[in-house]
Amino acid sequence: MNPPGTSPPVPRVWRGWYVLAESASLRAGAPPVRASLYGRPIVLFRGADGEVGALEDRCPHRDVPLSRGHVRGSHLACAYHGWEFDRAGACQRVPCLVGEADRPARRAAAFPVQEQQGFVWVWGDPKSAPPQPPPRFPWADDPSHLTVRYRLEVDASLHAVAENALDVPHTGFLHGGLFRKDGARNRIRAELSRYADRAVCDYIGEPRPEGLVARILSPSGGVVTHADRFILPGTIEVEYSIGTENHLVSAAALTPAADWRTVVWAVVSVRTRLPALLVKPIVQPIGMRIFAQDAEILRLQTASVHAHGQQRYVSTEVDLLGPQILKLLTRAAEGEDTPPAGPGAQPEYRTTIEMDV
Amino acid sequence: MNPPGTSPPVPRVWRGWYVLAESASLRAGAPPVRASLYGRPIVLFRGADGEVGALEDRCPHRDVPLSRGHVRGSHLACAYHGWEFDRAGACQRVPCLVGEADRPARRAAAFPVQEQQGFVWVWGDPKSAPPQPPPRFPWADDPSHLTVRYRLEVDASLHAVAENALDVPHTGFLHGGLFRKDGARNRIRAELSRYADRAVCDYIGEPRPEGLVARILSPSGGVVTHADRFILPGTIEVEYSIGTENHLVSAAALTPAADWRTVVWAVVSVRTRLPALLVKPIVQPIGMRIFAQDAEILRLQTASVHAHGQQRYVSTEVDLLGPQILKLLTRAAEGEDTPPAGPGAQPEYRTTIEMDV
Amino acid sequence: MNPPGTSPPVPRVWRGWYVLAESASLRAGAPPVRASLYGRPIVLFRGADGEVGALEDRCPHRDVPLSRGHVRGSHLACAYHGWEFDRAGACQRVPCLVGEADRPARRAAAFPVQEQQGFVWVWGDPKSAPPQPPPRFPWADDPSHLTVRYRLEVDASLHAVAENALDVPHTGFLHGGLFRKDGARNRIRAELSRYADRAVCDYIGEPRPEGLVARILSPSGGVVTHADRFILPGTIEVEYSIGTENHLVSAAALTPAADWRTVVWAVVSVRTRLPALLVKPIVQPIGMRIFAQDAEILRLQTASVHAHGQQRYVSTEVDLLGPQILKLLTRAAEGEDTPPAGPGAQPEYRTTIEMDV
Repeated sequence: MNPPGTSPPVPRVWRGWYVLAESASLRAGAPPVRASLYGRPIVLFRGADGEVGALEDRCPHRDVPLSRGHVRGSHLACAYHGWEFDRAGACQRVPCLVGEADRPARRAAAFPVQEQQGFVWVWGDPKSAPPQPPPRFPWADDPSHLTVRYRLEVDASLHAVAENALDVPHTGFLHGGLFRKDGARNRIRAELSRYADRAVCDYIGEPRPEGLVARILSPSGGVVTHADRFILPGTIEVEYSIGTENHLVSAAALTPAADWRTVVWAVVSVRTRLPALLVKPIVQPIGMRIFAQDAEILRLQTASVHAHGQQRYVSTEVDLLGPQILKLLTRAAEGEDTPPAGPGAQPEYRTTIEMDV
Repeated sequence: MNPPGTSPPVPRVWRGWYVLAESASLRAGAPPVRASLYGRPIVLFRGADGEVGALEDRCPHRDVPLSRGHVRGSHLACAYHGWEFDRAGACQRVPCLVGEADRPARRAAAFPVQEQQGFVWVWGDPKSAPPQPPPRFPWADDPSHLTVRYRLEVDASLHAVAENALDVPHTGFLHGGLFRKDGARNRIRAELSRYADRAVCDYIGEPRPEGLVARILSPSGGVVTHADRFILPGTIEVEYSIGTENHLVSAAALTPAADWRTVVWAVVSVRTRLPALLVKPIVQPIGMRIFAQDAEILRLQTASVHAHGQQRYVSTEVDLLGPQILKLLTRAAEGEDTPPAGPGAQPEYRTTIEMDV
Repeated sequence: MNPPGTSPPVPRVWRGWYVLAESASLRAGAPPVRASLYGRPIVLFRGADGEVGALEDRCPHRDVPLSRGHVRGSHLACAYHGWEFDRAGACQRVPCLVGEADRPARRAAAFPVQEQQGFVWVWGDPKSAPPQPPPRFPWADDPSHLTVRYRLEVDASLHAVAENALDVPHTGFLHGGLFRKDGARNRIRAELSRYADRAVCDYIGEPRPEGLVARILSPSGGVVTHADRFILPGTIEVEYSIGTENHLVSAAALTPAADWRTVVWAVVSVRTRLPALLVKPIVQPIGMRIFAQDAEILRLQTASVHAHGQQRYVSTEVDLLGPQILKLLTRAAEGEDTPPAGPGAQPEYRTTIEMDV
């Protein structure tokens, strides 16, 4: 929840697909699972028929969380009085009552659900139909890549997490040595493009990073291709190619569990000349160390925003994607749905800068 | 305290008698005891003369809680500067001061107190005189009944606790097996009557409940008489007669320690063909199990109301007493005192429904 | 922070010198230290050149606390992106940026700092220059006195702590036996004077206190001179002379870390006929006991103010300095700087009362 007085408020994009669980965590007929979007509690359950339902986690009768209830066939029953709801939120049973159970006032808000690539995606607005299916992780099913998944949580807004994940300048400081170094620098070019639903940054002339991860992936150096992307409402991608053999895509679906609490559903796909079995034990501890440093600095940032009662950012031109992400989120929070930008889409904004990395 | 923004606000009935302590917990001259009504702290103390006083738990001098002070004769002295107050709240001593201690501004708010049946009853409005004495527990002193007392606390509003205690439909679910079962059902009639100060529900045609408690009390079955009652500001009664031998009255005085925290002073009186000494060890653990289930569901209900910032109930006709209790509390919070309904009083509202139990 | 609704609000005197640290706690080049004034976080650091800087503890870039950063030469660098600030708050480096680092929007608020007598004094208003240097502890450097220092914290407003420290009537109750007794009393005179920047109370005719501290300092009795003083914004002094040999000055600089959290930087100077090495082990445990009792009663007072949502004091004429301190603080919070009252200054208010101690 926003502490009272924090300004500006976090933009809330309800009309969007968010990952709320992994499919494997919801077994048919098992106790329901609680999740949330911007602090709004949502209950997930898988009926005996195998289908997943997502309802507002509040029984319309007496406000008790439905996540404390039980699955009965394809229904979810409240623990208090046993009211039963189907996946569309209709009330199918009111025990003791003589007469019809279903009435408009007795319905629970129901969210569209789609399972895909092992994730349970939920459309955040129960009052609208999703205009397109959830996004796909493009390399997650590719047999030439090793793909690993992580669920992480950060005490920060979705915007702050997305900016951090796609930000180059902090890597030499916060992760000094692990990723980049704050020593001799190279001047490179960065091309920033914003489309209706996304912002993309391509880096040109970047040498192989000096840090450990890059040395392991590509000990002999090589030409580096590097792009960072944010796609509404919460997809982030960092894509590196080093030489012809190495390809790393660190993607994630960000879920705003609360205004200042973000769940990161990370999907990291790697193709490298090293045997796949060797990559994970080497790269994972370094990645976890980097993540822990980011999570701690973001937690401090959030605490500081709360202590001061406001978020006051000052940006320079090397803050490439952060301000664009905020613009996209703010616009989406206020307005209409944005169809995904197709392959030939023209950017609505483009700029090129020089920076020293 | 109401978290900011929770709506509607909990109705606060200040003009009423509430149990704040058991008489035995206040020894003459012993350290005072802190209690509260709707979050307003109240200090209770028993002077050397044996009389109990109830003052606002705040020294008018420097706001320090008087409950940290000491009893001196029939006065209560503040721990900080030793200001002394009598049971009427008058300031009887200001150490170091040359001159008169008592001044209107130096008085502490004093609440009318009455001890009865082992309870310390306090009238919640220090600015008015109570128009009638506190209510009595009708069977607590009856020698043919075994009476036991409990002090329990629940994280829920007085209204939610009263509704829960007098609600039939939840028993088959939340307490499935212990009390009623969600299996074969019987259609019975329920007559609801609301008077100026109370709401009463009589159940007609009810078979002996299937659960353990009823089987123990009445193994051979028998005609059941069952009535549930709420009396302003916080008395609840569940009265069962099964056959001619068995009589169970589970009564309680509810005290709103805070808007969302209620103390239950329960007085359970039983007359049964079983030896009294056998009833308590058998019935008590089952009663405690039922209470723990109710307390947990009410805590979840409260947490949900706070998470959503509002209490949004949807009722059906089998929610018999809950909506009437809320009406009585809301009216009493806004308006005038209500004299107790006498034996021949006419109900201001009456309805009969059928329900399946 | 003021809980919402507490009234009247605590007066905040920003234009004043406050102790935020001891000099010894800030080593050159060491990690910075976090402090606060009225809840506003401030970072202190000592550069490699030995000078201390005090900046708002928030990087203008992304709100991250600078107290998590590192000292680089005479600059403080943020841990996130490595922005560097000098002691005047100017931004001297933005890593990766091609071009000038310093811009008005990128500056951090900087507070004037002065080290004196081993304390780091900070002027609470970064937008103004201090019209005079910080106050001195008059006896702290005197070789005939034994001086000890303590850092203590209390959950109470600066006003409540200052009143408590300079209040005579509570000592016979809260510290009964340790300091004064609530038994046979003597009538004395107290002369109260308020100047533009201070309030002073002189006690005339006071016998040697009966408590342990006084007995140790002066076993044979003797004429007592006793004065209590408050000087804006947060200096308190209790000065006792007993006979010709014994002189005790218990002074402190109070720092409002938050509205309801005060740090006490105490400087106690004693001259006595006892060997200095004996005084400390005897007097210190008693002083700590007294302080613990005061801290607990002040914590309760604060909790009570928060529970009731307001501070409602009622004073008598033996509440000598408390109301004058509140008047000085309230005026200073609203208005202009007050130059220190010189030796020949005339009081703007004076009164004499009798009291029984």
